[in-house]
Amino acid sequence: MIKPFDDTYFMKKALQEAEAAFDKGEIPVGAIIVIEDRIIARCHNLTETLNDVTAHAEMQAITAAANFLGGKYLKKCTLYVTLEPCQMCAGALYWSQIGKIVYGARDEERGCINLNTKLHPKTKMTGGILAEEASRLLKRFFTEKRNLN
Amino acid sequence: MIKPFDDTYFMKKALQEAEAAFDKGEIPVGAIIVIEDRIIARCHNLTETLNDVTAHAEMQAITAAANFLGGKYLKKCTLYVTLEPCQMCAGALYWSQIGKIVYGARDEERGCINLNTKLHPKTKMTGGILAEEASRLLKRFFTEKRNLN
Repeated sequence: MIKPFDDTYFMKKALQEAEAAFDKGEIPVGAIIVIEDRIIARCHNLTETLNDVTAHAEMQAITAAANFLGGKYLKKCTLYVTLEPCQMCAGALYWSQIGKIVYGARDEERGCINLNTKLHPKTKMTGGILAEEASRLLKRFFTEKRNLN
Repeated sequence: MIKPFDDTYFMKKALQEAEAAFDKGEIPVGAIIVIEDRIIARCHNLTETLNDVTAHAEMQAITAAANFLGGKYLKKCTLYVTLEPCQMCAGALYWSQIGKIVYGARDEERGCINLNTKLHPKTKMTGGILAEEASRLLKRFFTEKRNLN
């Protein structure tokens, strides 16, 4: 059976958000939150635009999804994010008790896996979905930024 | 020499914020951010009011201080918070490169110390300032909440 709404489908939507960040000169990371195949939050990194280190894509998505649902727990939701969450975002996801996290590219240095950030025991995490696309966009961003300086 | 603006002075201001949270039925945690003995952010936990797990006192204080300063790094600032920061808040403080963190009570279970959240290498952290007062307020909150249920 063909399943139109699979992880790749939703990660493509998160990648579109990362591209929107790129176009604004932001580190290109995008995130969406899905419940029962329905997208309830679409966000991208806005740390430069808002002058705010807390404005990562995931943080905004958590706030937006909770606002949509009218409750602060995201137990039945899945977060799709183009880059492995950092400590801050994983810490926020811990509090949200989100059902599932799907990330694109790994972040060996600042990601929650190598830094051992604790997730909620009921949260599942998987990764590597469209990782190359996410990674390519990030590399392009940093290459262009370096050439500008 | 008497120094009127010491850690206890500022922690009292953070405690006043925690009391404001208590009065709203929020888990009573307060935070302020100081630069050169000047308070530039005063915030308290608003997770219930805003239905948002990211609305911890520290997160709001980081956003408010960056907004005041017009830049997202808080290198010359000190955060006073009545309870040891969690992973999310410590992760946000990492990104902010804050100069110093002073906390009141320890949070053995969910605090950043036992969970080994990484801080910026230039960030200093100390604690135990007005710890009993902060702890007493938290205990009173949870006792009253239990009795209501």
